[in-house]
Amino acid sequence: MRSVCVVGVGMSKWGEVWRMSFRDLHTEAALNAIRDAGVDRLDALYVGCMSGGLFVGQEHLASLLTDYMGMRGIPAMRVESACASGGMAFRAAFIEVASGMSDIVMASGVEKMTDCAPDDATSALASAADQEYEVFHGATFPGLYAMMAHAHMAKYGTTREMLSAVAVKNHQNGAKNPVAQYPFEITREQVEKSVMIADPLRILDCSPITDGAAAVIVTTEEVAKSLGKPYIKVLGSGVGTDTIALAQRQDLTTLRAVTLAAQRALDMAGKKIDEINFAEVHDCFTIAEIMVAEAIGKYEPGKAGQAILAGETGREGAFPINTSGGLKSKGHPVGATGIAQVVEVYKQLTGIAENGRQIPGSPTIGMTQNMGGSGGSSVVHIMEVAS
Amino acid sequence: MRSVCVVGVGMSKWGEVWRMSFRDLHTEAALNAIRDAGVDRLDALYVGCMSGGLFVGQEHLASLLTDYMGMRGIPAMRVESACASGGMAFRAAFIEVASGMSDIVMASGVEKMTDCAPDDATSALASAADQEYEVFHGATFPGLYAMMAHAHMAKYGTTREMLSAVAVKNHQNGAKNPVAQYPFEITREQVEKSVMIADPLRILDCSPITDGAAAVIVTTEEVAKSLGKPYIKVLGSGVGTDTIALAQRQDLTTLRAVTLAAQRALDMAGKKIDEINFAEVHDCFTIAEIMVAEAIGKYEPGKAGQAILAGETGREGAFPINTSGGLKSKGHPVGATGIAQVVEVYKQLTGIAENGRQIPGSPTIGMTQNMGGSGGSSVVHIMEVAS
Repeated sequence: MRSVCVVGVGMSKWGEVWRMSFRDLHTEAALNAIRDAGVDRLDALYVGCMSGGLFVGQEHLASLLTDYMGMRGIPAMRVESACASGGMAFRAAFIEVASGMSDIVMASGVEKMTDCAPDDATSALASAADQEYEVFHGATFPGLYAMMAHAHMAKYGTTREMLSAVAVKNHQNGAKNPVAQYPFEITREQVEKSVMIADPLRILDCSPITDGAAAVIVTTEEVAKSLGKPYIKVLGSGVGTDTIALAQRQDLTTLRAVTLAAQRALDMAGKKIDEINFAEVHDCFTIAEIMVAEAIGKYEPGKAGQAILAGETGREGAFPINTSGGLKSKGHPVGATGIAQVVEVYKQLTGIAENGRQIPGSPTIGMTQNMGGSGGSSVVHIMEVAS
Repeated sequence: MRSVCVVGVGMSKWGEVWRMSFRDLHTEAALNAIRDAGVDRLDALYVGCMSGGLFVGQEHLASLLTDYMGMRGIPAMRVESACASGGMAFRAAFIEVASGMSDIVMASGVEKMTDCAPDDATSALASAADQEYEVFHGATFPGLYAMMAHAHMAKYGTTREMLSAVAVKNHQNGAKNPVAQYPFEITREQVEKSVMIADPLRILDCSPITDGAAAVIVTTEEVAKSLGKPYIKVLGSGVGTDTIALAQRQDLTTLRAVTLAAQRALDMAGKKIDEINFAEVHDCFTIAEIMVAEAIGKYEPGKAGQAILAGETGREGAFPINTSGGLKSKGHPVGATGIAQVVEVYKQLTGIAENGRQIPGSPTIGMTQNMGGSGGSSVVHIMEVAS
């Protein structure tokens, strides 16, 4: 397999972006990435999108988006794994370049979620759960994650304060991210007084409904070098799956798909988890960040909450998590989230994170962890700055 | 890139399959393919599905289907390009094996279309057209292909009799296919007296709404040999895209995405179109088979209709097309269609096509051509029997 690099990144504005359509959002992010990388062609596009059908009535979207970015004719494919769709698109682009099939591939992600009514958005998101055993009976994701939170609290003594610490930290980071949907700090008191959604999860424990897109240019090391821009190398890629229905899990407090994905990515990279300097992880709810930090092997089961309270995962801590603001503050346009994680790792590794968001001490290896549904799928990548 | 083979195939029953759910259909096809190949593990799954969201309210389906086929944990990804989703899944599996990332990969496709009302199925399918410029104004696919048919008739003198000949031929073939939805012959008179859907297309010019799944095992030549089963080699893979809205095409009588895909696949295979012995093509409507036969370069523009009338594309003709019965007679569960095309090419090349459906003279090279929407995307593969 050939060595694979990321050489340019682009984002659209994230939030409730009424002035832009689904295709407009993607075009903005895609052209920003092309401009950033300085490439003059693309050999293929992989776009992650969870549900063009349910959110905006549009499937067949890879061809459409290729056309609107001015690349009509090139091979294009949409990939989907619920909220892990972006990370899966990045993996597909990685494999295509590694295989020798293509030299310059765009991996992108997009979701336009605010064009439907809030109830419809919740229903569309619920299609990532088991239609027959969860959705039919009325389950939605805040409820599913609330059950996982209760189980984690009961088994390990995880506290309300620990959940709040995730939200407060991620908003501290997101306040420095120019594309974030909610770029402001929040206090523990605000989190704990916010409206209850599904006990114990309050609205400030939940990532928002977001319109947005992100894109990165994936290429060979030879092309990356020739462009004369900073670039990073992809050392490892791993995917894991699990039952998508919580009822069929043996244990609600672990995320097996995440553990499998992380182990596979680390094995491929030839690295141990303690060699990773920082991570962007899938904090769709505050409890998810705690469970993921354990599932990737960074903390023992039941120990991540204490580490977060102690500041270990803050921007100046031993293992910064979600310096971008995470899904919580930056926003969560589901298909785009996994690509935006790569954007943040690229920025941190090449030292261009904006507004004083840069991790001190020049980190050299970062991880992205993207997750579908309540952990039915996960995709992890390990990336290193080119020396 | 490594040499890539297909070593086992499986299908579910196709039709209005009320007794089986979305996940059941896929499981049946997947287990049939695993049994046929004799493999004892899978390294990954790529599943093509156009719209789990709109047809059955289920996204995140790759993890779900992996779980239900007994493979919980392995990497899995769903790919989509409307009715070309199956062919795209096959391409993704091909690239993954070629890259060295995995040795044994399943490519599958599934769609459960009859669980929603007929109007809803038509609306779901319409999401493969341009939501803003076609669907919003009421366009559905019979209407879009009817416009293409009128343009082709006006420019080249293509006749009603030529359209009918496609339907009659494909039902002759489908009558010999044990999984076909409509396994019976029809006459020209029946086609031409059938109810009008969108002039000039009558109901017997249209492929049906179908439930069904298909799966194939994609692997290295080393593994294929070790299994001791007949296998075929994938020589070339090509994808092309085009505007998905007809209004933005310069010419309604050509299919540029198909031409690009065929050229790219032939170039990769190092073959000319006249070296291909037979093809499975995307006859979603009778006019589509005529236009595709021209777009792949087999016939000059405007000449395919005459060749079909003359019997050239019959099972015993010079260039058999759709010996499986095609989408017209076999059925068209949109995400599964591209995989079922590979199944037919595998059967013809290894000499196991059922019920006297075998092409005479031991063909050695076959082509699949799968298409999304009104030609906004297409994927072509060239396969050769292993000697």
